[in-house]
Amino acid sequence: MGQEDVEQEDAGPQDVAHEQGRGRTLAELSEEALLDEIFPLLAGGPEVVVGPGDDTAVLATPSGSVIATTDAMVRGRDWRDDWSSGHDVGAKVVAQNLADVAAMGGRPTGLLITLVADVATPVAWVLDLARGVGEAARAAGCTVLGGDLSSAQPGTLVVSVTALGSLDGRSPVLRSGAHPGDVIAVAGTLGLAAAGWRLLERGRAEADPEAVALQRRPSPPLAQGRIAAEGGATAMLDLSDGLLRDAARVARASAVCLHLDSAALAADIARLEPSMGPALARECVLAGGEEHSLLATFPPDRVLPAGWRAVGVVGDGAGVTLDGHPERARGWDHFAPATD
Amino acid sequence: MGQEDVEQEDAGPQDVAHEQGRGRTLAELSEEALLDEIFPLLAGGPEVVVGPGDDTAVLATPSGSVIATTDAMVRGRDWRDDWSSGHDVGAKVVAQNLADVAAMGGRPTGLLITLVADVATPVAWVLDLARGVGEAARAAGCTVLGGDLSSAQPGTLVVSVTALGSLDGRSPVLRSGAHPGDVIAVAGTLGLAAAGWRLLERGRAEADPEAVALQRRPSPPLAQGRIAAEGGATAMLDLSDGLLRDAARVARASAVCLHLDSAALAADIARLEPSMGPALARECVLAGGEEHSLLATFPPDRVLPAGWRAVGVVGDGAGVTLDGHPERARGWDHFAPATD
Repeated sequence: MGQEDVEQEDAGPQDVAHEQGRGRTLAELSEEALLDEIFPLLAGGPEVVVGPGDDTAVLATPSGSVIATTDAMVRGRDWRDDWSSGHDVGAKVVAQNLADVAAMGGRPTGLLITLVADVATPVAWVLDLARGVGEAARAAGCTVLGGDLSSAQPGTLVVSVTALGSLDGRSPVLRSGAHPGDVIAVAGTLGLAAAGWRLLERGRAEADPEAVALQRRPSPPLAQGRIAAEGGATAMLDLSDGLLRDAARVARASAVCLHLDSAALAADIARLEPSMGPALARECVLAGGEEHSLLATFPPDRVLPAGWRAVGVVGDGAGVTLDGHPERARGWDHFAPATD
Repeated sequence: MGQEDVEQEDAGPQDVAHEQGRGRTLAELSEEALLDEIFPLLAGGPEVVVGPGDDTAVLATPSGSVIATTDAMVRGRDWRDDWSSGHDVGAKVVAQNLADVAAMGGRPTGLLITLVADVATPVAWVLDLARGVGEAARAAGCTVLGGDLSSAQPGTLVVSVTALGSLDGRSPVLRSGAHPGDVIAVAGTLGLAAAGWRLLERGRAEADPEAVALQRRPSPPLAQGRIAAEGGATAMLDLSDGLLRDAARVARASAVCLHLDSAALAADIARLEPSMGPALARECVLAGGEEHSLLATFPPDRVLPAGWRAVGVVGDGAGVTLDGHPERARGWDHFAPATD
């Protein structure tokens, strides 16, 4: 892998894409020729013993364990080409995976990327994707270890990522560790990604550019995962499918009830009211997916780490309540019909 | 994960599929309900600290490193539903990945499985896939750590797997370690998977049931990877894209020339002649993909381990020769037009 060109390539992604990729599609390149163009856009790192190009990568795991997760994005389901560039998709699929690593209290170390693409896909799009992946990986201090390229039927475009990470000797923070009396806390924004999606759908992106930008490229509070683990978090997950649905997952795994307090969410709702109106702002905060902020529970005697704010308390029982009223676990499900 | 039902479920995959899955499609199940049916078909293992169901899995890596690879299969490209069952696809995609682990001299430890599927996909097919994955994983002594489910446009069906493994303290056997004078050796069959594909295409499956079975479910000599590493192999890869093309990869990575001897392949060619004829039999052995046997190089003073047979010698120069004549690296490429 030629690392020396990375900075230069990153300097002008638009120009490079136009210059190198004009009109070419995957059908005109061999797999090896395409990989030769992709590899320089990705990054190496200190824990990589063997990088891309052999049968497998080899990653050092000095702490004696590795954490692993996988998450895919599908064109037409997880993104629309008129809303998101290849760069956006690369950044988003990496962010989704790294949020899962953070939610265990982990530090990301390596990524494997699979692209399944219609051969009519422009090479420029693929190189833009690689730049988005590479940038997001470097920003998080982790490395692209390898991947796979496959052709597919017309129209298909799937990007699948596996993320590996290290706990650096800490215990993983599971979903199942919440206890009655614990404080429920959130790190990161709520509802912006969902609001951005609705604004894009209605052609009103200008009404909240920050929310739209976050829908295109999530910005999970990755470092807060380790901070929470070191701060005594008893349970944690990333908010991928909405606050209520994800809170219900902690409740189920821990056999407790999560009591959420809407007053603690007032600022989040108010943030979205100017563009969404009060009802939809509330819905985005409570049930909006793809935010990838972190939800954790902390023992009541702990001071919440900086970056975390209390949104409720854990009690006996099951499920989730909002201001004392039971809430159904609405939010995003990949196969079931949408609930909103 | 309810492990107690695994044996029973495996006993009658066809009946179970018909009984449990009659007529249902993914559109009728939530993601969580589907996972509840899939998890019991998969297996746990001793190195798993945290299995499926949390944000990430956690795998112990007592030897201080992990090896990682990923490989996907796409319906219509990598399999046809009239030739291969879900069980076949699950077995094959696992075998492809585990062959890569073996080719580094590694032992497989964990798998992550991503399914991207049209919601009209029968639930029975997905459960059959899970059985194929689970069986292949258990046979290799490794564990399904987690995965991802996504819906996709009509007709799309993609199965992507990441395999993790351990070198158990050994050095990885790279493609780049071959030296002039080394013996080139093969473990496993040659050309059967390609012959099976041609027979299926021509509606002549009965002409060589073993070849057809191997096309549907490859049987890589997984244990031979570690044996070769312990036996001093200097370079190794798995034969996924054909003997000539994969030999050229070792030649390029090692900056040497691989001289293959067709006399050493005579038995492989003769094996396929009754069903394929002499010319096509030779082509399958030299350029047939998807076999997932292993190619390695050994120092000339080493006795080849049992299970390995010499097929040539490494020399100075570049590329691949057959009986002294330079050969172009023909074989399978995912994006370029087929060469045969």
